[in-house]
Amino acid sequence: MTGAESLLQSALKSGVDTCFANPGTTEMDLVAALDKTPEMKTVLALFEGVCTGMADGYGRMLDRPAMTLLHLGVGLGNGIANLHNARRAQTPIVNIIGDHPVDHVPYDAPLTSDIATMAIPVSNEICTSTSSDMVGGDFARLVAQAKTLPGKIATHITPSDVMKNETSMVHDPVAPDAPPAIDDSVVKECQAALEGSGSETAIIINGRALRQEGLTLANQVASKTGCTLFSVCFPGRLERGAGVAPITRLPYFPEMVLEKLQPFKTLILIGGYTDPVSFFKYEGIPSSLVPEGCRTIRLAEPSQDTVMALKVLCESVNASGESVKTQELKLYDKPTGAIDRNTISPAIASTLPENVIISDESGMSGGPIFYHTMSGPAHTSMYLTGGGIGYGMPCATGAAIACSDRKVLSLQADGSGMYTVQALWTQAREQLDVTTVLFSNKKYQILQVELDRAGIKEPGSIAQSLTELSNPDIGWASLAKGFGVPAAEPQTAEGFVQELERAYAEPGPHMIVLNI
Amino acid sequence: MTGAESLLQSALKSGVDTCFANPGTTEMDLVAALDKTPEMKTVLALFEGVCTGMADGYGRMLDRPAMTLLHLGVGLGNGIANLHNARRAQTPIVNIIGDHPVDHVPYDAPLTSDIATMAIPVSNEICTSTSSDMVGGDFARLVAQAKTLPGKIATHITPSDVMKNETSMVHDPVAPDAPPAIDDSVVKECQAALEGSGSETAIIINGRALRQEGLTLANQVASKTGCTLFSVCFPGRLERGAGVAPITRLPYFPEMVLEKLQPFKTLILIGGYTDPVSFFKYEGIPSSLVPEGCRTIRLAEPSQDTVMALKVLCESVNASGESVKTQELKLYDKPTGAIDRNTISPAIASTLPENVIISDESGMSGGPIFYHTMSGPAHTSMYLTGGGIGYGMPCATGAAIACSDRKVLSLQADGSGMYTVQALWTQAREQLDVTTVLFSNKKYQILQVELDRAGIKEPGSIAQSLTELSNPDIGWASLAKGFGVPAAEPQTAEGFVQELERAYAEPGPHMIVLNI
Repeated sequence: MTGAESLLQSALKSGVDTCFANPGTTEMDLVAALDKTPEMKTVLALFEGVCTGMADGYGRMLDRPAMTLLHLGVGLGNGIANLHNARRAQTPIVNIIGDHPVDHVPYDAPLTSDIATMAIPVSNEICTSTSSDMVGGDFARLVAQAKTLPGKIATHITPSDVMKNETSMVHDPVAPDAPPAIDDSVVKECQAALEGSGSETAIIINGRALRQEGLTLANQVASKTGCTLFSVCFPGRLERGAGVAPITRLPYFPEMVLEKLQPFKTLILIGGYTDPVSFFKYEGIPSSLVPEGCRTIRLAEPSQDTVMALKVLCESVNASGESVKTQELKLYDKPTGAIDRNTISPAIASTLPENVIISDESGMSGGPIFYHTMSGPAHTSMYLTGGGIGYGMPCATGAAIACSDRKVLSLQADGSGMYTVQALWTQAREQLDVTTVLFSNKKYQILQVELDRAGIKEPGSIAQSLTELSNPDIGWASLAKGFGVPAAEPQTAEGFVQELERAYAEPGPHMIVLNI
Repeated sequence: MTGAESLLQSALKSGVDTCFANPGTTEMDLVAALDKTPEMKTVLALFEGVCTGMADGYGRMLDRPAMTLLHLGVGLGNGIANLHNARRAQTPIVNIIGDHPVDHVPYDAPLTSDIATMAIPVSNEICTSTSSDMVGGDFARLVAQAKTLPGKIATHITPSDVMKNETSMVHDPVAPDAPPAIDDSVVKECQAALEGSGSETAIIINGRALRQEGLTLANQVASKTGCTLFSVCFPGRLERGAGVAPITRLPYFPEMVLEKLQPFKTLILIGGYTDPVSFFKYEGIPSSLVPEGCRTIRLAEPSQDTVMALKVLCESVNASGESVKTQELKLYDKPTGAIDRNTISPAIASTLPENVIISDESGMSGGPIFYHTMSGPAHTSMYLTGGGIGYGMPCATGAAIACSDRKVLSLQADGSGMYTVQALWTQAREQLDVTTVLFSNKKYQILQVELDRAGIKEPGSIAQSLTELSNPDIGWASLAKGFGVPAAEPQTAEGFVQELERAYAEPGPHMIVLNI
């Protein structure tokens, strides 16, 4: 078999069975190998940022890596923004990046570039294979590294001769590193804070603890000690809705975070990379959002088991017997009348399917929706972890491939939707049950807010022009149709409700454009 | 004034007066400064790859840099592929990349990444400014570096506090480095080869020598000595058509290059980065395409003055008095009948406007068009220098902004067109005279050819699926309409001619979709 076939066989043995691909000439042997390996599900995207974003959505849902297939440095470049988001989402991914044969690189052919250096800012691990006998083993090792908590980005550079040459080796899976144990003395410190003054203690959670089990444990700790629970503002994945123990998301703007955290003397941090910090830096507001006089205790680093951290914490404060206060189901009436801030959220909440996955890149339109869906049926929400806009539609697509038995709702702002709009074509090709609600407000609204915050109260025509998506307006329904996704533009709230119900009922992707 | 205003004032003094922008929060002070600086033409794009591709097209036409405005590492990532192409095109560009304030970076906020490392593979120069007093001077120095031959990519990382803080400094232009002189002894070596056996000598040219003056000089040398002239396969810019001294482009596939170069004992290289090399490596074909027993003489490196090199070469062989054999005008009849390989090229050639700029990313559809336009009115052609697909529509857009008095013809294959399709919106917004001919063959045809070359004669369903842009077909006219560009889908050759004539006659962008 070829090196490429060995890689795919080794990948399957390691539990990697999905490939998000945008191949080029240097990847032809891998394409040939995929052709012989139908057990590897291969999904084509028209742009590499869609591949990496799909792998992010997939990994968030399954906690195991898909592979991406990218074409040299330029292909990696196109995938960087969503790899950045995936890294922040703690998503396991293995990137396969084709390259020239090792001895062709010095000739500096037009597509030659320094792939390994380009990969550094978005990769936890980088490996360039140099032998066909080893390429499957290299991949297996990278899978283990990707799976090592919290979930990592591993980049595998595969020269085309290594992929073409013959080998007989198929490699066994490699075990991920075990997470460092939770430190007893830190647990005791947390316990003392919680038992000493629970109401002055908050727990801020990120990572896999933001699912049913972790949220339940956190809820018990809060019930017992009176502490407050927060999730980070942009978790990779958050379980919520009826039957789930609720948690408050920290706000986005730093002055609001400071206000939220003001009452606390102790912050217990679980699974976050850093103390709470300002997303951007603003004049007169500190970078660190830990209130003055408040101490932080890092109970679990991202590399540790965050659910285990909550388990030992729960036991330490004797909260394991506490009854869990889960969210009650509260359904909203289907709204009627104009499409506006008062009707959009109830329309979405009142039609929300059970167990839906929401990919939320709704930008400034998202706040009220988050509120109204809180008491809907249990669902999964995913957020823009790394701030690299253009994550939403690819992430929705990858989640739909990972969970073919679940509906996906893609809440998409227009500005950010434009970066990886090609994802719609893959949704159509794979006939995925993704419903995109497109918020067409015809501006980069966040930038208008940020201009205002920066003290530019009356922007002139150039600043306006740089923050407006008009002249011409973007015809989203036309774009969707061009990519093979049927689109509707309802004019009333009842029309919106109807289109949502139709979209969920009919198989395949749909777009609903809201001109707001 | 702010650091951002100082940067813009310094930029204007250095002759940089155009900014291709996709700003975010960290760039708000630059947006505010742009608002106060109408002398700086600011063009918004919906995706950073469009910004960098526009800067490439602009720089190719004007030989001076535009600036791009990108949002941190994720914005740079999205722009990398077209910066790679620009570097290979020897295009001067200065990238402005916003970043967090220096003292916010260690807090590792979600958008933080290692921008400088990411920039290395696509930048000749990288500078991070640390003071508002210096930021304009840093920019002026980067402009000089970008302008230093052959044309370079300079990346300027501008922390938001540096852009916000006050300064009174506006900085003077900095002179680019002078190119190293052409080496007399190398000229003598070339002269000896040309005079000794001109018919066994070929000159391979890249860079600015592929314009009127350089081509004229090369033509005189060839007339005098009987040598053969080639351009590299993918020059950044090539002048051609009636009245211009013609030159043969080297072919793409290596076995064809080897065949072309077989007759020669000496290759004189002007302005190329390397000896002729295979674009990709194929089994049994060497990386270097210099025939065995043939020697190469590097008369001018990319960093040298390639026109000067031809001038001294021309004088050395006493060819300055030679009459120049320019291309004669030969117009084709307007074709009728079906739209196919026999009619597409004559339709384009027979309607070609005088002095048009062609951005050629026609992929496998381009060969016959190159042939038929050769004898059309004088025009400029631009090619995919770096192999990073998605250069065509942005490059056409940037060229149209650089040369508002010229028509632009964007020859675009469907697969590559999908990577930076957002360029159409900027064409509509700026009402640019760009006519896009979209070759919708519904496949990555080059990959089907490459599969065949790799010995995969009967690809199975997965390999087929990875090379076909069908299921669903992409509705290009619908996409164009969504971006505000009127589109036609002619069904006959006469209809195609009519649409071309209409597109050239009407102001603003047009797309003509050819379903082939």
